[in-house]
Amino acid sequence: MDSIKVFAPGTVANVACGFDVIGLALNAPGDEMIVKRSDTPGIRISAIHGADLPLDPAKNVAGVAIQALLQKYEATKVGFDVEIFKNIHPGSGIGSSAASSAGAVVAVNQLLGEPFTRKQLVRFAMEGERLASGAAHADNVAPAILGGFTLVRSYRPLDITTIHTPKDLWVTVIHPQIEVKTSDAREILKQKILMTDAIKQWGNVAALVAGLYQENYDLISRSLEDVIVEPIRSILIPAFHELKLKCKEAGALGGGISGSGPSVFMLSQGEENARKVAATMNDVYAPLGVDYKIYVSQINTEGVKVIG
Amino acid sequence: MDSIKVFAPGTVANVACGFDVIGLALNAPGDEMIVKRSDTPGIRISAIHGADLPLDPAKNVAGVAIQALLQKYEATKVGFDVEIFKNIHPGSGIGSSAASSAGAVVAVNQLLGEPFTRKQLVRFAMEGERLASGAAHADNVAPAILGGFTLVRSYRPLDITTIHTPKDLWVTVIHPQIEVKTSDAREILKQKILMTDAIKQWGNVAALVAGLYQENYDLISRSLEDVIVEPIRSILIPAFHELKLKCKEAGALGGGISGSGPSVFMLSQGEENARKVAATMNDVYAPLGVDYKIYVSQINTEGVKVIG
Repeated sequence: MDSIKVFAPGTVANVACGFDVIGLALNAPGDEMIVKRSDTPGIRISAIHGADLPLDPAKNVAGVAIQALLQKYEATKVGFDVEIFKNIHPGSGIGSSAASSAGAVVAVNQLLGEPFTRKQLVRFAMEGERLASGAAHADNVAPAILGGFTLVRSYRPLDITTIHTPKDLWVTVIHPQIEVKTSDAREILKQKILMTDAIKQWGNVAALVAGLYQENYDLISRSLEDVIVEPIRSILIPAFHELKLKCKEAGALGGGISGSGPSVFMLSQGEENARKVAATMNDVYAPLGVDYKIYVSQINTEGVKVIG
Repeated sequence: MDSIKVFAPGTVANVACGFDVIGLALNAPGDEMIVKRSDTPGIRISAIHGADLPLDPAKNVAGVAIQALLQKYEATKVGFDVEIFKNIHPGSGIGSSAASSAGAVVAVNQLLGEPFTRKQLVRFAMEGERLASGAAHADNVAPAILGGFTLVRSYRPLDITTIHTPKDLWVTVIHPQIEVKTSDAREILKQKILMTDAIKQWGNVAALVAGLYQENYDLISRSLEDVIVEPIRSILIPAFHELKLKCKEAGALGGGISGSGPSVFMLSQGEENARKVAATMNDVYAPLGVDYKIYVSQINTEGVKVIG
């Protein structure tokens, strides 16, 4: 096999109460990438469609992630040509850079005969995240590569586990096309928080994980509450509180800010509810004069997929 | 049925990273109670063996818990005589008051023909806890009544769920017979904590719950870490750090302070490891000149049990 085409999913990091530790993978939106193996050493980004991103592999997250993989693989006389079709808008908060990094390392790993496990690939993709945001975080690349819900327990040592995904869980995401810088979204957070709030948050995180294993949609719904980050970051997102309230009235289990925003996600039981939530998001945002896109998808339990 | 005998288990609240939200039930130590139904209205505590506690039902946690149940049941012309055999030392940090409250309401509920579910009984037993500590907390009475690992997600509204218990999980508890007042143990805690510590804690709590569902003993071990409460409260417990270190060297998965102390618990995979941990606890404590008791038991997945 000398050429491969992969689908690289968008992802939702944080997942309400799971700030900095829980993420999930989407079926839509997602990028596509074609990676070709060549005998000419080096990594070449031949084209990027749909976004204005650097072709220089040292400045492109896919290039950096592949480079991290090749450093461990210690191969000589092997090179890769990468073509990227971006559907995930950079800066949307649904893991645009993570998708490129994750797709790139999964594709290259396939072309090399799978020397690494999916879990091992996470570390290489994290180097792409380091380039994109200055921090080698895993909360988007882990679900992008592994699929489903993932939990990053710790970074030193890196400890990632997959959490059971209930069959009938769907996600609706709205991406308001405004700019929220990850660095700004992080700066406004407090360095110290109330113990009582922290206890509420870890009670909710524990209940979310239990609810996912129990496939208990009511418990999932009750636990999708973020008392620490959302009250602060939501001020950056137009009509956030109205959006959330109306989505829950329309049948959403709950939701919150996707990553550091500006996208907002809602979980629902079943496709019908997820589509009602999408219609509600549209109703709330249509009058606002802000461009936006809405996506409906089941949770993606496979992660990056080979599609050709 | 006019008379019933129940076993009411000791419990471990907090469970390392699960401060204020997670608890578990033990098979040892536990109290026994004989409750008799009578046609003479009122609650009478006829005798308490093994501890010096008030016989006045308005000042006894079992009496108060039964009274809370009867207020909801609205029965007239029914009374109860209670005899308590205490094996759980008051002030040990392994749910002594919770066992009395939990045992009392389960026994009375049986004698009345089970008008309430076990989950409904938790609320009545919490009134016993209110008498004992001033706060109607559920982190001991929930596991005592429901068995296994329990999670108290919130109090308003009260939201309790049972978490899966791996078959081969054992607990070793050491009770150093020194006094640590719950109120003192709570006062030394900080009202504000670092966001970075809180994130570590909820990553660990999420991983503990995932590890229990996965029956993944390694993940359980890695997640049994409390970066917030243990560093402060452990100063109240003699030789805490040596004890913990040596227990882990002896094969314990991990552990921490039971409730607000002074007891310390360790989880192990299998009885053999749990007994090695008990021997290690003995080795550490024997030279200290402090009286202590050590208990080894599998996790109790049934909660309060009818034994006669």
